[in-house]
Amino acid sequence: MAIFANKRKPDTELGFGTKNYNGRVRFISSDGQVNVKRTGLSGIENIDIYHWLISTTLTKLFIVIFAGYIVINTLFALVYFWIGAEYFGGLTYTTSTDNFLALFFFSAQTLTTVGYGHIYPASTTTSTIAAIESLLGLLGFALATGVLYGRFSRPKAHLLYSRNVIIAPYMEMTGLMFRVANYKQYELIETEAQVILSIDNKETNRRDFLQLPLERSKINFLTLSWTIVHPIDDKSPVYGLSVQDLIDRDAEIIILIKGINDTQSQSVFSRFSYKAEEMLENVKFKPLSQFADAKGRLNIDVKEIHSVLPVQAVKIS
Amino acid sequence: MAIFANKRKPDTELGFGTKNYNGRVRFISSDGQVNVKRTGLSGIENIDIYHWLISTTLTKLFIVIFAGYIVINTLFALVYFWIGAEYFGGLTYTTSTDNFLALFFFSAQTLTTVGYGHIYPASTTTSTIAAIESLLGLLGFALATGVLYGRFSRPKAHLLYSRNVIIAPYMEMTGLMFRVANYKQYELIETEAQVILSIDNKETNRRDFLQLPLERSKINFLTLSWTIVHPIDDKSPVYGLSVQDLIDRDAEIIILIKGINDTQSQSVFSRFSYKAEEMLENVKFKPLSQFADAKGRLNIDVKEIHSVLPVQAVKIS
Amino acid sequence: MAIFANKRKPDTELGFGTKNYNGRVRFISSDGQVNVKRTGLSGIENIDIYHWLISTTLTKLFIVIFAGYIVINTLFALVYFWIGAEYFGGLTYTTSTDNFLALFFFSAQTLTTVGYGHIYPASTTTSTIAAIESLLGLLGFALATGVLYGRFSRPKAHLLYSRNVIIAPYMEMTGLMFRVANYKQYELIETEAQVILSIDNKETNRRDFLQLPLERSKINFLTLSWTIVHPIDDKSPVYGLSVQDLIDRDAEIIILIKGINDTQSQSVFSRFSYKAEEMLENVKFKPLSQFADAKGRLNIDVKEIHSVLPVQAVKIS
Amino acid sequence: MAIFANKRKPDTELGFGTKNYNGRVRFISSDGQVNVKRTGLSGIENIDIYHWLISTTLTKLFIVIFAGYIVINTLFALVYFWIGAEYFGGLTYTTSTDNFLALFFFSAQTLTTVGYGHIYPASTTTSTIAAIESLLGLLGFALATGVLYGRFSRPKAHLLYSRNVIIAPYMEMTGLMFRVANYKQYELIETEAQVILSIDNKETNRRDFLQLPLERSKINFLTLSWTIVHPIDDKSPVYGLSVQDLIDRDAEIIILIKGINDTQSQSVFSRFSYKAEEMLENVKFKPLSQFADAKGRLNIDVKEIHSVLPVQAVKIS
Repeated sequence: MAIFANKRKPDTELGFGTKNYNGRVRFISSDGQVNVKRTGLSGIENIDIYHWLISTTLTKLFIVIFAGYIVINTLFALVYFWIGAEYFGGLTYTTSTDNFLALFFFSAQTLTTVGYGHIYPASTTTSTIAAIESLLGLLGFALATGVLYGRFSRPKAHLLYSRNVIIAPYMEMTGLMFRVANYKQYELIETEAQVILSIDNKETNRRDFLQLPLERSKINFLTLSWTIVHPIDDKSPVYGLSVQDLIDRDAEIIILIKGINDTQSQSVFSRFSYKAEEMLENVKFKPLSQFADAKGRLNIDVKEIHSVLPVQAVKIS
Repeated sequence: MAIFANKRKPDTELGFGTKNYNGRVRFISSDGQVNVKRTGLSGIENIDIYHWLISTTLTKLFIVIFAGYIVINTLFALVYFWIGAEYFGGLTYTTSTDNFLALFFFSAQTLTTVGYGHIYPASTTTSTIAAIESLLGLLGFALATGVLYGRFSRPKAHLLYSRNVIIAPYMEMTGLMFRVANYKQYELIETEAQVILSIDNKETNRRDFLQLPLERSKINFLTLSWTIVHPIDDKSPVYGLSVQDLIDRDAEIIILIKGINDTQSQSVFSRFSYKAEEMLENVKFKPLSQFADAKGRLNIDVKEIHSVLPVQAVKIS
Repeated sequence: MAIFANKRKPDTELGFGTKNYNGRVRFISSDGQVNVKRTGLSGIENIDIYHWLISTTLTKLFIVIFAGYIVINTLFALVYFWIGAEYFGGLTYTTSTDNFLALFFFSAQTLTTVGYGHIYPASTTTSTIAAIESLLGLLGFALATGVLYGRFSRPKAHLLYSRNVIIAPYMEMTGLMFRVANYKQYELIETEAQVILSIDNKETNRRDFLQLPLERSKINFLTLSWTIVHPIDDKSPVYGLSVQDLIDRDAEIIILIKGINDTQSQSVFSRFSYKAEEMLENVKFKPLSQFADAKGRLNIDVKEIHSVLPVQAVKIS
Repeated sequence: MAIFANKRKPDTELGFGTKNYNGRVRFISSDGQVNVKRTGLSGIENIDIYHWLISTTLTKLFIVIFAGYIVINTLFALVYFWIGAEYFGGLTYTTSTDNFLALFFFSAQTLTTVGYGHIYPASTTTSTIAAIESLLGLLGFALATGVLYGRFSRPKAHLLYSRNVIIAPYMEMTGLMFRVANYKQYELIETEAQVILSIDNKETNRRDFLQLPLERSKINFLTLSWTIVHPIDDKSPVYGLSVQDLIDRDAEIIILIKGINDTQSQSVFSRFSYKAEEMLENVKFKPLSQFADAKGRLNIDVKEIHSVLPVQAVKIS
């Protein structure tokens, strides 16, 4: 869908279009990924291998590396075996199975460049294949070095979001608010937040994406925790709507946070979303218990950002 | 040509000068490269080897690595052979050819540090050369690691541009528009576009570079597709010009897009250009078919951004 | 503590909350670290291993690498020994201790891929373990390469701060000032400073964080030294306060400096703080002795930024 | 010297202070380095080893690597020799010199992990030292990989500056101008220039640093060449001064250029300076000869940016 199809506020273009879906949708999934699948190009063109390698889990990465190691060694062992075990020095086995296994391990010793040498290529052909294999081994290892470094050095924000977004008293009125904390020991500086409401527009039967103005949208340091507040005044798009109204309109609160990871001096981005079902009323956030320890160091328990306390629902009679 | 030669709008300086060429030129080639060749310095000073290594095709890179591997091993084999095969342990061949081949493979085993050891340097001279070769091997491999990592981690935008730029109805008037989509699975955020018209000025006989104002020049996310629109109002430089007029003036629509690749948290740049011959009239873009799949994930087929539908040419009688 | 709890100036949010602690606290420790410890998540989730590896001392890093090397080799040696020394070729020792030690060194030769080969795995099981160990060795080494590169290439500011912050004559009035110098040979460009006063508010019994306006907050180059000055006019939060008053209020002067390291073309950040106890009155900074040497190069001794000269205390009678 | 010592324009603070030196000085040396030497800290604290490794010449770097390789191997050979050649397998030489040389090469084979194995450590002590050496070899190689990658990937601008800064006719008046061109094949985008005049102030006997306003200070692309012009109107600090006046005042034109290298998507910085002696009058720049080749590619010869043509000196009678 074309993005320009109807006029919107210039600061709130998420590029999701304005189509209304039959089922309920979630634009930002729980792990911060944008919930879009792009297809249409042939082969691997829609896939970014480097992206996958540096963002998949460590377990999956090691399975891929290990499986690749076995497959490549098997292939080279087959080639060596097909050429003939007699073209190798030090190979004294008498059965085919033993020879094949020995050639498999010779391949592993060549690929990793460990090269013990108790078995060695003794003909031009086998030496040539082994020379190619050791070059491939070095290049593959160069790739692995790059991928592991890319993973490790990838700028990331490690933000914990409160379990719920709440509607709580704020100043003289109410506010829609949630809390975030950095749970790692580095600092996140020059942190900025943007909060967007995605909601069904019952009149146009389209989906609106509306910027929610914040009481404060930027802080220098995210040291303890940050309560991000959208004051619900009469200009707010959620003014006069109950939580049930928001659920009925399949509302989603989309959060974009940008900051600088000061270990790496690089910009990092965090995304999160709450569905209306995760919204609480008649509660307020419990202040984090923070204390200075013997060394004068401030201590916080980041898990406390989830804690809420009940409040008397305010009724204007 | 000096850039200041005549006054232009401060936001539209592409640095191409204002000279008019005899033939037709294309300032941005189809793969987004700026179509300029710079010469004049001696030797390799006009060439950026790192730039070449990280931007050439993988096939060419592997050919260079493989050819270099053969050349270096041949050179070292010649040195070893010239010193004498008798200064190597384990070398039991009787013909020169066999000795040379064995020394070639010994060289490969030294360069890759696989070092089986069935052949080994047995004199001071041959040991010295082998010690140098293994150091060179490590350094060469260090370079290869850097190049492969540089290629993989290089910030890139993967944008698909619609095949044509079209003149289509827009709001109450017409617009010059094209579509872009990110065809990979990562997100491109804070994306900005700039569109510049390069056109022959029949009056001054010079080439003008004119910024085309956009209906929206920045979006937060490039999730689905983005239709970039220049509204053709009476202040537009293309107002009143037909597609044939633009062809006659050798017009080129130059597009500069800047965004942030969120896997790498780095700015990426994309360039593209349409020649007037690639412009279509009396069509409009067909909306992308997008649907939420069973997992609530929005699906799009990026190839659909090329699709256009015919529209009745609007005539004001 | 929620950050929004009371209204503050939008440009001074350090995220420390406004709680007053019983003891004296220091928000920025002497090495520029933010003095906060975050806990609450299970296991290693509060720890950023990469952050630790690239920011710990070189000595600690080498101890970790060396200890890891011994532990891994011991583990593999135990496995090899448990399988049986008789499944290795070249192992001719007669005592268990000698066999274990030989297997420990075989493990080291496999992990580092040096693979002399005088001892080699001679059964399927031992060959398999050795093949896994050499793969692990390569991956571990890939990690070490990444960590060492990450450490070396990490963008850092190397700023020396004057030992004291001083209250000195400035123009026609007084100023709160300190000096910084870059003590390395690269250049720090587009350098910006921000100075924040953290002070107990005796009226609200809370802690205030107040931006101190600077006479100049940005310089193009930090070539020699930079005296950063907060002019103490009647709008300054320290106007009318003595050094003793500041000590009584547990005042801390927090400094945030941002610049671009021009070797790496990357933004770098420096933090520092002075407690009120480190403040001097009735002194002024001694100008740095700078001279052009025979090559026309300006020479400075960065240690001189600490030097102060006594001044007659100005009294308005 | 304190930077705030006298009031200056906020956009022209180079951090050089305002001291006047007896001899003639050059603030930016011909290779763009800031001409400052910083001392005062003990040991290597004033030196940034990584900075040196990635910015020194390739020749010096290879000499350092090669010398280090020889030194480390000699040290380990001495240790091995001191322990005793009899604790090595395969060492069959009879003279001390031959044994020492063989141990030197054994050390090289261990450090590079080539490990042929015709000589191998046969005691616990020698095996331990060899295990340490191979670990050191891997770590040293990891460092070399990082340094070579850091050099290659270091963001750089490759700008050629015209040999002279000239005073030439510009529009209806005159301008101070010079030309720059990117001589590599990548593109430099969003390029900004700043030009600063450093000049002796005869009245205050101090050195002034004055920003020279430019006709255009930013261009989108630096494709062909860029003539940077300071129009000499009656507000210009050089208005009414002859070249000889500028020489008498030891004037230096300091140029700071910032852009984005689009291969690496990173900001790059270039510095240059002209002394008044390098200024030419009564000339103008010869336009670059640029032509479209058979492939429609624009060709320029970057060396032509040096070329000037004589002009009739304009005299107002």
